[in-house]
Amino acid sequence: MTQTHQVLAHVDETIDEAVARLFELLSIQSISTDSAFASECVRAADWLARDLGTIGLVASRRDTTGHPMVVGHTSNDSTDTRPHLLFYGHYDVQPVDPLELWNRPPFEPAIEETSAGPVIRARGAADDKGQLMTFVEACRAWQAVTGSLPAKITMFFEGEEESGSPSLIPFMKTHADELKADLALVCDTGMWDTDTPVISTRLRGMFAEQITIHGPSLDLHSGMYGGPAINPIRVLSRVLADLHDETGRITLDGFYDGVSEISDAVLDQWRGLGLNEQEWLDAVGLSTPAGESGRSVLEQIWSRPTAEVNGISGGYAGEGFKTVLPSKATAKVSFRLVGDQDPEHVKRAWRAHVEARLPQDCTAEFLTKDGSSATVMETTRTEFESARVALTEEWPNPAVFAGCGGSIPVVGHIKDLLGMDSLLIGFGLDDDAIHSPNEKYSMRSFHKGIRSWVRVLAALSERRA
Amino acid sequence: MTQTHQVLAHVDETIDEAVARLFELLSIQSISTDSAFASECVRAADWLARDLGTIGLVASRRDTTGHPMVVGHTSNDSTDTRPHLLFYGHYDVQPVDPLELWNRPPFEPAIEETSAGPVIRARGAADDKGQLMTFVEACRAWQAVTGSLPAKITMFFEGEEESGSPSLIPFMKTHADELKADLALVCDTGMWDTDTPVISTRLRGMFAEQITIHGPSLDLHSGMYGGPAINPIRVLSRVLADLHDETGRITLDGFYDGVSEISDAVLDQWRGLGLNEQEWLDAVGLSTPAGESGRSVLEQIWSRPTAEVNGISGGYAGEGFKTVLPSKATAKVSFRLVGDQDPEHVKRAWRAHVEARLPQDCTAEFLTKDGSSATVMETTRTEFESARVALTEEWPNPAVFAGCGGSIPVVGHIKDLLGMDSLLIGFGLDDDAIHSPNEKYSMRSFHKGIRSWVRVLAALSERRA
Repeated sequence: MTQTHQVLAHVDETIDEAVARLFELLSIQSISTDSAFASECVRAADWLARDLGTIGLVASRRDTTGHPMVVGHTSNDSTDTRPHLLFYGHYDVQPVDPLELWNRPPFEPAIEETSAGPVIRARGAADDKGQLMTFVEACRAWQAVTGSLPAKITMFFEGEEESGSPSLIPFMKTHADELKADLALVCDTGMWDTDTPVISTRLRGMFAEQITIHGPSLDLHSGMYGGPAINPIRVLSRVLADLHDETGRITLDGFYDGVSEISDAVLDQWRGLGLNEQEWLDAVGLSTPAGESGRSVLEQIWSRPTAEVNGISGGYAGEGFKTVLPSKATAKVSFRLVGDQDPEHVKRAWRAHVEARLPQDCTAEFLTKDGSSATVMETTRTEFESARVALTEEWPNPAVFAGCGGSIPVVGHIKDLLGMDSLLIGFGLDDDAIHSPNEKYSMRSFHKGIRSWVRVLAALSERRA
Repeated sequence: MTQTHQVLAHVDETIDEAVARLFELLSIQSISTDSAFASECVRAADWLARDLGTIGLVASRRDTTGHPMVVGHTSNDSTDTRPHLLFYGHYDVQPVDPLELWNRPPFEPAIEETSAGPVIRARGAADDKGQLMTFVEACRAWQAVTGSLPAKITMFFEGEEESGSPSLIPFMKTHADELKADLALVCDTGMWDTDTPVISTRLRGMFAEQITIHGPSLDLHSGMYGGPAINPIRVLSRVLADLHDETGRITLDGFYDGVSEISDAVLDQWRGLGLNEQEWLDAVGLSTPAGESGRSVLEQIWSRPTAEVNGISGGYAGEGFKTVLPSKATAKVSFRLVGDQDPEHVKRAWRAHVEARLPQDCTAEFLTKDGSSATVMETTRTEFESARVALTEEWPNPAVFAGCGGSIPVVGHIKDLLGMDSLLIGFGLDDDAIHSPNEKYSMRSFHKGIRSWVRVLAALSERRA
């Protein structure tokens, strides 16, 4: 029995204890957007720092102006030539509203039997406490069986991922030397399907901001003022309607600068994934891909930029009718970016698009939420193939390199501020209901996730062994 | 001293008692949209029926499937050849939210001193209890001084005006014979300014409905689905943006059918009102009339149709950002109609406009709120000039015939179902904050409003005298 197999066996034997530890972490109400839960965020950070101490890391809570970070290291032995890995995760969770839609209290985790097998039900089960703990538990098993970890490891957890990460960049800049390693590992992504693990090699970037169109200085009665008074909803509608042309292309000036075509090799690989577009669309009540015409669904999600309105409001939205002519209207707009698209350029082009559509007496107010470039990993690095092989050993189907339509800003920061590539491996499933009521994490994801990291750690440490 | 002057003197002497009666009515919480206040609506109806009984009318509460009506008549003497007048008002009021913005409890009326003189502060002070009571008090004074009213009078009060008047048309149809008179009087409008009374001779009609665009069967994550999944906000924006062309004209097919140009004589009269467009716009933070180019503000409000979005909502509208791709988006749309525009035709054209812009996988759901034609009064009837002269005697400035941008559906029903014209006279001011916190009615409006009706009743009864 190889050392790796001994560690895997240990994981299987102690899985109940691993679940119990995860439940402790899940019972902490570390909602980062709501300041009422600030002390719970501190509790979660302290819990993690203490737990890392039990698996051979020197770890501590690092206070910031927001919620604390947690950083832990294996011994700082300069003669240690093993690869140095930085693992990133976040311990904060989304709010739980609407509470009445949960089938149980969101911070009282439990294992529930479902038609798809047992699941861990709790806020944060999948995003990201459960995923984060797959890596911690893999390290614990290595430590228990071999007395040490198979690589130099730095753990880095934040508590503001669900609230815009205001402290992340300052902290990474200040502690760049401490955080630098050979490769980053990030466990905040999902599986292709229940049997097929994924290494995410492309992430879309994002530029997002709120826009408010201001018109009259107060809400007016549409009978008394309708006609002469400009209606901000009408202006906002024009701004948003003009974002796309009839073919689904985005009309902003120079928007596609930096968007390059995907190579045939990569397209071939994506086709090889065998996505059934019809089923994929069916599952959400659709029949036709609505993006740029002539592009497959995977191209549209992984390799093409988008412009979306994530929210809109203005005037009276309650039951019944009020014939108000509102003084303002607001929308939340986000652009997913790919390739070398520059968030700053997109911001300028978007704002110019708005200004060009502002009539007399209207002004636009902007509130930037987010700006991050897209990331494409250096998949030629040997670690990517090593990890792919290791994952393939654990799961029924071979692991695949895939894109990811979402944005994980920390991966861009790790690249820009620390000069490191990230290996994105995660075990979430599409139906985990992250950010929604009844969030869950499959027991299989948790158990085989831990085993996966045991194998990946072995594979990465053998690289220089 | 003429009889009219005796009655006016009586009004002045007893004004405190009139205020006390109004306060009783204002203290009843007759909010019609909220069924929790149904018994308060009954209380208001009973109060009015009882009060009408004290001024020589045979009056009773008339229950409906909704809130009750109140109908009262002077004696039914077939030899009585005096003119027969139908007075309409409503005793229900708007909800009071947000309560914290009121400077006093909305159902505990009080007189407050302001820089513009004393005002009656309470929900319903102006809309419509205060206005309604100006007419009732004028009748009371005639009764007190002369022992009878100067005309045959039918009073008709409803309690559902603020909640869509569901019982109004059925009741008017069933009781058409009872309600028919020579002329209707409606007191639900305002003054031109504090010194200039108005007889409103044109009311815009309205077609209003809520539209919901449905797309995906559930809210999606814009990272995972942005691109292939159609966003209903994008579709709704297109529908709304395309409602107007660049000159401010409404683009619906055949929308302007039935809209005729105003005669030069009427336009001259409107110009004679001397509206300072710049000041009018300044007051609400605007500088340029936004309606159809080449039309004055008064033309735009009184004689041109409009399309307005009164409310819009979809996706995440709270603080911060959620990258949701929503399953639906909703808007409340209303069209103000003029001339012979047909609400049914507008509805069909609007819905066709929407259908033409629905992409694959989107559906539109409509919920009609309102449909009423515009009304133009027969101002050649002698009563209009008689009333104008009577009002001119009471106020510093001569009374004017003016349009009204708003819609008062009951006026259309009185025309269509009872075949009667309406004389619209009211004493509200632009800053009365009807439908808003701190609603008020100027004491001057109340007192001189009563006196105005005393004079108008005299003028109308002299017609056949």
